[in-house]
Amino acid sequence: MSSVRPLFVVAGIGNGTGTGAATASRLFAKSGYRVALISRGPEYLNKLATEISQAGGEAAAFPLNDYTTPSIKSAFAALKSHWPSSPLRVAVFNAGYGVWKPFLDITEDEVRESIDTNVLAAFAFSREALLEFTKLELETANEGGVAGNARKRGTLIFTGATASIRGNVLTSAFSASKFGIRALSQSLAKEFAKQNIHVAHSIIDGGIITDRTKSHHNNPSWEADQDVRLDPNSIAKSYLYLVEQDSSAWTWEIDLRPAHEKW
Amino acid sequence: MSSVRPLFVVAGIGNGTGTGAATASRLFAKSGYRVALISRGPEYLNKLATEISQAGGEAAAFPLNDYTTPSIKSAFAALKSHWPSSPLRVAVFNAGYGVWKPFLDITEDEVRESIDTNVLAAFAFSREALLEFTKLELETANEGGVAGNARKRGTLIFTGATASIRGNVLTSAFSASKFGIRALSQSLAKEFAKQNIHVAHSIIDGGIITDRTKSHHNNPSWEADQDVRLDPNSIAKSYLYLVEQDSSAWTWEIDLRPAHEKW
Amino acid sequence: MSSVRPLFVVAGIGNGTGTGAATASRLFAKSGYRVALISRGPEYLNKLATEISQAGGEAAAFPLNDYTTPSIKSAFAALKSHWPSSPLRVAVFNAGYGVWKPFLDITEDEVRESIDTNVLAAFAFSREALLEFTKLELETANEGGVAGNARKRGTLIFTGATASIRGNVLTSAFSASKFGIRALSQSLAKEFAKQNIHVAHSIIDGGIITDRTKSHHNNPSWEADQDVRLDPNSIAKSYLYLVEQDSSAWTWEIDLRPAHEKW
Amino acid sequence: MSSVRPLFVVAGIGNGTGTGAATASRLFAKSGYRVALISRGPEYLNKLATEISQAGGEAAAFPLNDYTTPSIKSAFAALKSHWPSSPLRVAVFNAGYGVWKPFLDITEDEVRESIDTNVLAAFAFSREALLEFTKLELETANEGGVAGNARKRGTLIFTGATASIRGNVLTSAFSASKFGIRALSQSLAKEFAKQNIHVAHSIIDGGIITDRTKSHHNNPSWEADQDVRLDPNSIAKSYLYLVEQDSSAWTWEIDLRPAHEKW
Repeated sequence: MSSVRPLFVVAGIGNGTGTGAATASRLFAKSGYRVALISRGPEYLNKLATEISQAGGEAAAFPLNDYTTPSIKSAFAALKSHWPSSPLRVAVFNAGYGVWKPFLDITEDEVRESIDTNVLAAFAFSREALLEFTKLELETANEGGVAGNARKRGTLIFTGATASIRGNVLTSAFSASKFGIRALSQSLAKEFAKQNIHVAHSIIDGGIITDRTKSHHNNPSWEADQDVRLDPNSIAKSYLYLVEQDSSAWTWEIDLRPAHEKW
Repeated sequence: MSSVRPLFVVAGIGNGTGTGAATASRLFAKSGYRVALISRGPEYLNKLATEISQAGGEAAAFPLNDYTTPSIKSAFAALKSHWPSSPLRVAVFNAGYGVWKPFLDITEDEVRESIDTNVLAAFAFSREALLEFTKLELETANEGGVAGNARKRGTLIFTGATASIRGNVLTSAFSASKFGIRALSQSLAKEFAKQNIHVAHSIIDGGIITDRTKSHHNNPSWEADQDVRLDPNSIAKSYLYLVEQDSSAWTWEIDLRPAHEKW
Repeated sequence: MSSVRPLFVVAGIGNGTGTGAATASRLFAKSGYRVALISRGPEYLNKLATEISQAGGEAAAFPLNDYTTPSIKSAFAALKSHWPSSPLRVAVFNAGYGVWKPFLDITEDEVRESIDTNVLAAFAFSREALLEFTKLELETANEGGVAGNARKRGTLIFTGATASIRGNVLTSAFSASKFGIRALSQSLAKEFAKQNIHVAHSIIDGGIITDRTKSHHNNPSWEADQDVRLDPNSIAKSYLYLVEQDSSAWTWEIDLRPAHEKW
Repeated sequence: MSSVRPLFVVAGIGNGTGTGAATASRLFAKSGYRVALISRGPEYLNKLATEISQAGGEAAAFPLNDYTTPSIKSAFAALKSHWPSSPLRVAVFNAGYGVWKPFLDITEDEVRESIDTNVLAAFAFSREALLEFTKLELETANEGGVAGNARKRGTLIFTGATASIRGNVLTSAFSASKFGIRALSQSLAKEFAKQNIHVAHSIIDGGIITDRTKSHHNNPSWEADQDVRLDPNSIAKSYLYLVEQDSSAWTWEIDLRPAHEKW
C-alpha cells in the first residue's frame, strides 16, 4: 500500500477562495495527498480542483446537491471508485450553515437546515470516514511518498467556531449545531483513539479572510492587517500539524484566533 | 391577572413514576400552579393528571404522538384554550431519547430520532413558551395565590445530563443532542434575560430512581441508599428553587448528583 | 447531640453590611444555627454579632489579624471552646482580596497577598472545617431544632466570582487566586463526598449591593433596580438551599447573576 | 537586531532527561535559538547545556536555589548579561512541584511549596519574560538566521496538566496550583495580545517518558509503546509549532495526550 498516495477528503469549501478547508486542500495536495473535494456549488468545486491540478497536485470534485446522508454516502462511493487503491488518511468536516437571528425570528425550516447541514451531515461524514479508517492498516512511515505517521490509521478534523463553546444572543440555532458537532468530535476522539484514529476539533475564533468577508468588510486595512483576521493558510497549517502529530501526543482541541481578537 | 392561578407546563414525563419532571409537576401543583402535561404515552399522562387532581391539584394531559414542531404547537394551542386566562409562568423541557451505542452501530434513523426528539423539540417547545412569556406582564408578587416572583415574566428550565457537558464512548448521538440543548439554553438565557425571562439548565449527573431504573437495577439496597441515586423529589425542589429566584440572582446552570457518584 | 443547635461558621464578611456571607449569617441564625464570624476588622464583626443577637439569634465574633494558617487555626480553636458541644455543620469561605491592575503594575507583594488571602486561607479554613465534619456523626433529621439534613456530615461552601472561571485583562492575580479556590473546591467535593460531606462553589457573576458598592456607584437607580445588581439576600438563600439539599442530589457549582447582567 | 540569534529561556527542566522542556531546549537550539536554562539542580542543568553545546547549539545554565521571585530575577539578569544583544523571543515555564495526597495529610508547608513553586514562580517568570518582550521591536521575518515570525514580539508558553482543568481526589494542592497558572496564562494572553505577545497553555494529559517514569514503570513495553505515554519530542514539536504560528491565528490552549489515554 505504501507506494500509493494517500487520500485527503474535505466536506464544505465555501466558495473556494479562502476558507481554511479550501486552503488546506491546496496544502495537503502539495504535501502529496490526493484531494477529494465534497461540497455544494459545482463551479467552485471544479475551479478549486482545476487550480490544484494545474499546480501539480491531484484533485477531484464530488459535488453535492445537499448534505443529506445519502448524498454524502454517494460522494464517498464516487471518490473511492475514482481512486480505488488510495487509503483515506485525512478527513476534514468543514460544512455548515449559519443563521444569526433573534430566536423568535428563526423559522422552523432554518432550525432544521442548521441542524441538518451541521450535525446530521457531520454524523454521516464521520461514519463514511471512520468506516474507511477502520478498514486500513496503520500508516507506514512514508506512505506513497508522503511524510507519514506511523501508528495512525487516519485523522478526522472538525472545524468549529466560537459558537462551539458559547451560546449567545442571535446564535441559538448556530451554537446548538456547533455544540453538537463538538460533542460528536469528543465522543469519537475517545471511542476511536484505541484504534489509533485521531479525531480533533479546532475552534476558529474570529473572522477569516475570504472573498466574501473581503467584500463584506470592504476595508483594505482589515485585509492587510494580519493581526485582526484569520489567514486560511494558518488554519491549513494547523490541520497539517494535527495530522502529523504522532500517537504519543494527540490534540483533541485547538483554538485559533487573530492576535488582536477580543475574547 | 393576579387572581388567576399561573400555569406550569412540562414536556416529557417518561412513564410518570419518578422522573424529576413528573415529580416537579406534583410539587408545582401543590404550590398553586395549574399543570399542563405534554408527553407521549397517553396512559401515563392521564394517570399522572388524575393523580394530581385527586391530591387537590389542577392538571390536564395533552398527549403527543411525536415531538415534531406541529405536534408541540398543537399541544400549546390546546392548553391555552383549556385555561385561556392563566398566565404561563414555568416551562420545563424534559423530553428526550437516548441511544447509547458504538458509533458505527448507530443507524441514520437513530441519529435523526435523537436530534429531532431532543434538539428540534427543544427549539419548538422554547418557541411556544417564550411566545407566551414575552406577551405577559411581569409577575406580581402573589399571583393567583402563588408565592410569585416580582420582576420575572417566566422561567424556562431544561433538564440536562452528564452527556450535556462531556462526549464519551457510546454517547456520540446522545451527547450531540444534549450539547445542542445546552447551547440553546445558554443562548436563550442571554437573549431573554433583558426581558426578565429566566432560562436555566440543570445537569442531572447520575441515575434517577424510577420504576424503570428500579427494575433495571433490581437491587433494594440501591433503591434504599439515597447517597447513590437521585431522588426525583430533590430534582423537583431544585426546579422550584430556580423558579423562585428573584431577578437579582438568577442561575443559568446547576449540577445535581448523588453524594457517592464518581465524577 | 440532637438537642444542641448546630454551628455555622463564615470567614470573610467584608464590612458586614451586605456581602452574601454577612447576610447568610443572619439567615442561618434565624434558621436556628449558632453563628461564628471570622474576619478581619473587629468593629464590623462585633457589630454584626450584636445585630444578630439583638434579632434573637446567637452569634460570636472571632476577629483575625490576618488570614494566615495559624490565625485561622486559633479562630477555630476559640469558636470550638466557645460552643464546645455544638456540631459544626456549615462553613462558608468568603474571604478574599482582589487586585485589578495591568499585570506589569502588580507588585510581588500584591501577588502574594492575593494568593495567600485567597488560596492559602481557603486551604487552612477547609482543613479546620473538614477536621470537624469528619469527626461528626451524620446529621439527624432535626438537629437542635434545625430542619436538618439526614445523611450529611456538613456543608462547605466557597464564594467564587466571574474570575473563578475566566482570566481577563487586569485580573491575572485575582483570577489565579479564584481559579485556585475553585480547583480546591472541586477536589474536596470529590474526595469528601464519600464521607457525606458536601462541598459547593458558587459563582457570583455581577456586582453585589453593599455599603461600598452603593457609595461607589452613587446611583439610586442602580440600587433600586434589582435586575442589575445582586441582592445579598438572594445569595444567602442560595447557600441555605445548598445546605438543605439531601444527599441524593448535591450541587457542586451554581452561578448567580442579575437578570440584566451581560455575560 | 536581525543578525543576532534570538533567545529561548526555559524554567524547570526536571532531571533533564526527557521532560518536554528539556527536549524543547534541544529542538530550539537546533532551530537557531540561544538557550538559557533556569532550574534547580545544577548538575542536570550543566549536563544539558553541555549536551546542547556539543551538538552544535548554544546554551548556558542559570541554576536556581529556589523558585522565589528574587532568584528568578537574578537568573534573568544573569542571562541578559550573558547574551546582552540577543532578543528574548521564547519563554517556557515548566517549573512545578506536585503533591498527591489525601487533603488532610497535606501539610501547610506542602501547600505553600506547591503554590509558591507553581503559581508565584509563574508570576515572577512571566514578569521577567514580558518585561523583555515589551521592550522589543516586532520580530522580523528572519531574525538571526532563525525562521522568524513577523509581527510577534515573543511567545510565552506554560506547561499544564490534567490537573489544570480538573480537580480530583488527591490533587487539591496540585490542581489549585495548576488552575492558578492556567488563569494567569489566560489573563496574560488577553492582556498582551494587543502588543503582539503570544501566550499559550498546553495541557499534558498523560505520562511522559523520562528517566524517572521509566524507572517508576519499570516496564519495557510501556516505554516502547508510543500509544500509551507522551514522547517529549512531540511536546517539543508542539511548542515549536506554537512559536511559529503567525499573528493571524494564535492558539491559547492545546491538549496533548497519548492515543490510548483514557479521558
